[in-house]
Amino acid sequence: MTRHLNVTVWNEHVHERREPSVKKIYPDGMHAPIVEGLRRELGNDVTVRVATLDEPEHGLTDDVLADTDVLTWWGHAAHDRVADSVVDRVHARVLDGMGIVVLHSGHYSKIFKRLMGTTCSLIWRSDPGGEREMIWSVNPAHPIAAGVPQPIVIPHQEMYGEFFDIPPPDELVFISSFEGGEVFRGGCCYHRGAGRVFYFSPGDQEYPVYHQVEVQRVIANAVAWCGGVAQANDATSGRQGDRPRNWFLRST
Amino acid sequence: MTRHLNVTVWNEHVHERREPSVKKIYPDGMHAPIVEGLRRELGNDVTVRVATLDEPEHGLTDDVLADTDVLTWWGHAAHDRVADSVVDRVHARVLDGMGIVVLHSGHYSKIFKRLMGTTCSLIWRSDPGGEREMIWSVNPAHPIAAGVPQPIVIPHQEMYGEFFDIPPPDELVFISSFEGGEVFRGGCCYHRGAGRVFYFSPGDQEYPVYHQVEVQRVIANAVAWCGGVAQANDATSGRQGDRPRNWFLRST
Amino acid sequence: MTRHLNVTVWNEHVHERREPSVKKIYPDGMHAPIVEGLRRELGNDVTVRVATLDEPEHGLTDDVLADTDVLTWWGHAAHDRVADSVVDRVHARVLDGMGIVVLHSGHYSKIFKRLMGTTCSLIWRSDPGGEREMIWSVNPAHPIAAGVPQPIVIPHQEMYGEFFDIPPPDELVFISSFEGGEVFRGGCCYHRGAGRVFYFSPGDQEYPVYHQVEVQRVIANAVAWCGGVAQANDATSGRQGDRPRNWFLRST
Amino acid sequence: MTRHLNVTVWNEHVHERREPSVKKIYPDGMHAPIVEGLRRELGNDVTVRVATLDEPEHGLTDDVLADTDVLTWWGHAAHDRVADSVVDRVHARVLDGMGIVVLHSGHYSKIFKRLMGTTCSLIWRSDPGGEREMIWSVNPAHPIAAGVPQPIVIPHQEMYGEFFDIPPPDELVFISSFEGGEVFRGGCCYHRGAGRVFYFSPGDQEYPVYHQVEVQRVIANAVAWCGGVAQANDATSGRQGDRPRNWFLRST
Repeated sequence: MTRHLNVTVWNEHVHERREPSVKKIYPDGMHAPIVEGLRRELGNDVTVRVATLDEPEHGLTDDVLADTDVLTWWGHAAHDRVADSVVDRVHARVLDGMGIVVLHSGHYSKIFKRLMGTTCSLIWRSDPGGEREMIWSVNPAHPIAAGVPQPIVIPHQEMYGEFFDIPPPDELVFISSFEGGEVFRGGCCYHRGAGRVFYFSPGDQEYPVYHQVEVQRVIANAVAWCGGVAQANDATSGRQGDRPRNWFLRST
Repeated sequence: MTRHLNVTVWNEHVHERREPSVKKIYPDGMHAPIVEGLRRELGNDVTVRVATLDEPEHGLTDDVLADTDVLTWWGHAAHDRVADSVVDRVHARVLDGMGIVVLHSGHYSKIFKRLMGTTCSLIWRSDPGGEREMIWSVNPAHPIAAGVPQPIVIPHQEMYGEFFDIPPPDELVFISSFEGGEVFRGGCCYHRGAGRVFYFSPGDQEYPVYHQVEVQRVIANAVAWCGGVAQANDATSGRQGDRPRNWFLRST
Repeated sequence: MTRHLNVTVWNEHVHERREPSVKKIYPDGMHAPIVEGLRRELGNDVTVRVATLDEPEHGLTDDVLADTDVLTWWGHAAHDRVADSVVDRVHARVLDGMGIVVLHSGHYSKIFKRLMGTTCSLIWRSDPGGEREMIWSVNPAHPIAAGVPQPIVIPHQEMYGEFFDIPPPDELVFISSFEGGEVFRGGCCYHRGAGRVFYFSPGDQEYPVYHQVEVQRVIANAVAWCGGVAQANDATSGRQGDRPRNWFLRST
Repeated sequence: MTRHLNVTVWNEHVHERREPSVKKIYPDGMHAPIVEGLRRELGNDVTVRVATLDEPEHGLTDDVLADTDVLTWWGHAAHDRVADSVVDRVHARVLDGMGIVVLHSGHYSKIFKRLMGTTCSLIWRSDPGGEREMIWSVNPAHPIAAGVPQPIVIPHQEMYGEFFDIPPPDELVFISSFEGGEVFRGGCCYHRGAGRVFYFSPGDQEYPVYHQVEVQRVIANAVAWCGGVAQANDATSGRQGDRPRNWFLRST
């Protein structure tokens, strides 16, 4: 990586506390294995902190965001409880250059829908026991696909299928297939303002997906990629939009 | 064109009524030459109606939108006066398949920012008399570029320049240069849900841009392109997202 | 469709003549059901002719190409027998605005590799009896996806899987899954010069894929889409590249 | 940068030896300031060597290419003298993961046309003294745009204008304007196989463009970006394409 990254792992942290089946898989919260994976894969290149819904301002104050290079987001049961003011703040920070990695059911979060501009709807199936998901790279030289097998096999998962109502990805990295035959664009890169967005679909709370090493590796790769923006020279300059003739001759 | 299109030309219609300089150029409103151009270029293939800010619900009721295949949008001085409920409605209708052609200062409209997910900021310059804009096609075989010269020359225009904070266009059709040396991605296509979006930058209220035949031709081409979506078989199916195993075998 | 299209269906026509199993499925050649489907779906909007490898210049003379708006291409066993001079000619004609629909094993044809600039390699499996393929639209409002079920189910097919070494598609329309779990970007749009290219993966010679109505419908949609280029004003102008200052003022 | 890069700067080296006006600007060859810029900007992260047309195999033997992570390419007067066998070799190496930065008139090189699949034609003007070019970033957070002013101003340049017959770039970074009003997509990223391609338009031999620090910086950024591919797990796997059912279960 080019620079040290401060990462904030955001987790709704609702299912793990109220549902025994989830608590058993993630006794310390779903964020725990995500943090563990980031530390293992990225080591001294990252400083990781955790923030959750129940903290004041969901743990995403101006100060925290200003000090965050990449945010990861997992939410599901409580999308509506995320305050609009926090969503506005996160949105503005992404456009100013913070990366964001949105995980699984985060496709329906306010922040992801705000960034995409679409419904982000999809089809799904939650059979008991789930079904096998296979994750195929369609861009094997992409940094987010580095070091993972082709395909990644997740033994038990909730099905997510097309049509997934997102803008055409700027870079499509992964496509999943499911035992039932459905497919899903499960690894999608976007450039929004000066920030980078990566959506990664694996991770239902009912299965130990975030304990899987290959999944942790993809999330770590995604954090590194999302943190790889340049210091934008002019990304926010439109906010001082009015320019006299030959302004650039004076400024350079 | 493949099918008859119902087009609604939406105009804020504020500048033309309060500023003599604008009234002189557009005595019947800026929408008048836009409508005229659509009728000349598309003839019997379109039915055109007009809607403006001051009408109830800005003229964009559920019924009007349900009956609209493509909407064009010009706004500037009164973006904030557009009701959020109407923006929600237009947004949903676009994702369901209505096309939208956003013009000039409409880049800062609520609906465009909602669809893009970014600030849509840019740099600009409003010198008296404006400056020459040249519009270059970078995709000359694109239907929106059909029948217009390379380049289109607009003698007097407000400068709009980069960085324009939009998502990378799904299809980039036009790039403008200005006498002062700035460039601008002024013709951008997007696919959002089942709908198509085209942004076209020419058209400041201080200059007779919409009277220019080539500009009218581009707007007509854009309306035809935005109306060219297929009847989506499954674009909205995510809203009934839960699917049992082998659901598709039953349904086909 | 906007204009009448002259379509040339090109078929290598080797397997059908030498292998009884293929002859049984396609007694009149694989081109026969392709032609039939185009005529049924597009009717009077198209004039269809057939050309095959064994004809002089493979049936693709200058005159034929000049009179062809869209070419479809199926080849497999005899890619090497296609003359380079004919490939040059087809390539030039595509860049000048002719559409081309490349089918199945045509991914390894000289013309497709020339247009893509990559190896176009993929993984495959030809088990006896094949396996079920499901074709999912990821852009349901795209004209090429019009009127077909989500998903299209092909009962028996050869598996084609990722990584498929093509440039990232300009528009991705279909993704296939196979019974064995693989996925494949099987419906890909490209813009090259003034021409449009569509690759569509179904169609192994051992199975009656081109007799399937939904597959015929997609091919017809693709022909219509590939024929939808505008008369390019300037697409070939680079060939008279040297321009004095203000050349455009004189010419417009 | 993530890893040490071996860079080969390839220069046709014809103009500098036969034309006094060019020799004066580039007494040690055009490659000299390019090498100097790479060393200044990337320091110990790169090892740079030079290769030229007149060397055996143009200095691009199998061994040199195997040991090259990123190749830069400048050619103009002698495109036709580059051996097809060397072009084949470079092409294969790019698809296997070597980056390539193609400069200015290299748009008409065999290797660039091979990678693009199009004519790569454009319009141009070579007035004595040239004209001012301004290079605008339309993706200011892109690593290739890092650390350069918005815009970069090149006082004297040959005009290159649209339509530039290239595939739509996978990522568009820079757009140039020229004093005469033309525009040009002058900074374009492509993904081809496991390799990355960047085209950068500045650099006519008649002007001291490669001595300009900002231009050197962009080339250095481009080299770093092109070298940023992951070790592709599966990018070349299609070459062993035939796969039995469940092959991936055995291999992972």
